Amino acid sequence: MGAGQLIRNIFVYGYSRITMLSKAKIKFIKSLQVKKYRKQEQCFVVQGAKSVHELLASDFEVTTVVGTDAFLETIPTTSAEIIRASEKELTDLSEFQTNDSALAVARLRNNEKLDVSPNEYAIVLDDIRDPGNLGTIIRTADWFGIFKIIASEETADFYNPKVISSTMGSFTRVHVQYTRLDEYLAQQGLAVYGAYLDGQDVHTTDFASGGLIVIGNESRGISPSLEKFITSKVTIPRYGKSESLNAAIATAVICDNVARLRK
Amino acid sequence: MGAGQLIRNIFVYGYSRITMLSKAKIKFIKSLQVKKYRKQEQCFVVQGAKSVHELLASDFEVTTVVGTDAFLETIPTTSAEIIRASEKELTDLSEFQTNDSALAVARLRNNEKLDVSPNEYAIVLDDIRDPGNLGTIIRTADWFGIFKIIASEETADFYNPKVISSTMGSFTRVHVQYTRLDEYLAQQGLAVYGAYLDGQDVHTTDFASGGLIVIGNESRGISPSLEKFITSKVTIPRYGKSESLNAAIATAVICDNVARLRK
Repeated sequence: MGAGQLIRNIFVYGYSRITMLSKAKIKFIKSLQVKKYRKQEQCFVVQGAKSVHELLASDFEVTTVVGTDAFLETIPTTSAEIIRASEKELTDLSEFQTNDSALAVARLRNNEKLDVSPNEYAIVLDDIRDPGNLGTIIRTADWFGIFKIIASEETADFYNPKVISSTMGSFTRVHVQYTRLDEYLAQQGLAVYGAYLDGQDVHTTDFASGGLIVIGNESRGISPSLEKFITSKVTIPRYGKSESLNAAIATAVICDNVARLRK
Repeated sequence: MGAGQLIRNIFVYGYSRITMLSKAKIKFIKSLQVKKYRKQEQCFVVQGAKSVHELLASDFEVTTVVGTDAFLETIPTTSAEIIRASEKELTDLSEFQTNDSALAVARLRNNEKLDVSPNEYAIVLDDIRDPGNLGTIIRTADWFGIFKIIASEETADFYNPKVISSTMGSFTRVHVQYTRLDEYLAQQGLAVYGAYLDGQDVHTTDFASGGLIVIGNESRGISPSLEKFITSKVTIPRYGKSESLNAAIATAVICDNVARLRK
């Protein structure tokens, strides 16, 4: 650490709170790639400068920020532990090769109970297994102003690093409740739109002013056991020959068709 | 090989053409995960039962099919070399852990020159680097009846196994021409719609009966050097707070908005 940098850090963070990356910390951070350890430690990892900035501006409780000197100069005052690291240390520590400037650890939120009012939309995910798909759905929901997602217990874990990364920061704004979907859907009285291959054309569907949009599993679609709760089957019209659309793609197209009616 | 199976295979494929998986073949197939070797061998790999079926029904020249006995019973007569393998051998051979029944090797197509007529749509990809995004865009294009994609030379390789896999079979129907986009766009007289964050609302854009839809790189969007060729900047209206949409998601929403005007 150069003398100028040292003096600056004393003023900005308080010297005692800036440490170097220990072997124990490396092991701890890497362990959080696995759901079992995330649950045990009640912590998750956020990778990349943009996502760490969004995390620090959110209401998540951040416990540790690891960054290059250049990155650490850009962050607001925080009560988190600050660790200086080189680009190489960060690349080694990250699951994604492109992350060479920042990483943070934050506390998990407890599984939330989300109340969906009759005048808003929420997305219901029936076993979306691919973390990239879940992350992209969260990012897409955030774009279309949908901030509540109800997910089956078999859906990928919100705190999986690939989910967090592919949300591109939207994990700070969109909330996900994990629950049994049959019980959840049986208890509420909202309009329930389900994405099927043989439903009503989304271009002409008269979406109500609120309700649930159910997206099925990547391979098998919506579970037969949930079909009785669907009040409208909807379909994105096909002009070519793909057998189906990717789950995140279908979510986006349906959300856009819902959104255009709300203007 | 059981006697019944053996006799069946003699009739169906001709005995001499069924072989077992050799070390040399394993090495060859694995080498095709790398672009340099795909180019050298002029071959690529297709993984998974569904994709191999689509490949065998296409006009690609298939050189080798590796499958379990159960899979090999399901395929049509082919002039390709047939190799029997166990589920474990197939899982070991595949990049994707879920593939345990079939894999095939086929010849690359030469880079094609695609003519886009004034009454059709084509997609132009300006440096889509992520193979999953490219594969999903190909699958999505196929859904919306768009079978021609013009891609910059920095765009992910069509024959990358992750691209092929995420097309879910659409690689057999959608054609991609790799070229310099500035030269390509300078030479044609079609309407050119570019996906921007500050363009005209796609919900009210009067898309013509044909043209090019330009999608920019995942991080930086459409290159400034291509902006002069864009005849209409278009934007998917945002209702929430994501800074941007995933490239494949944006492609799908624009294609759906184009499609609804063509009814």
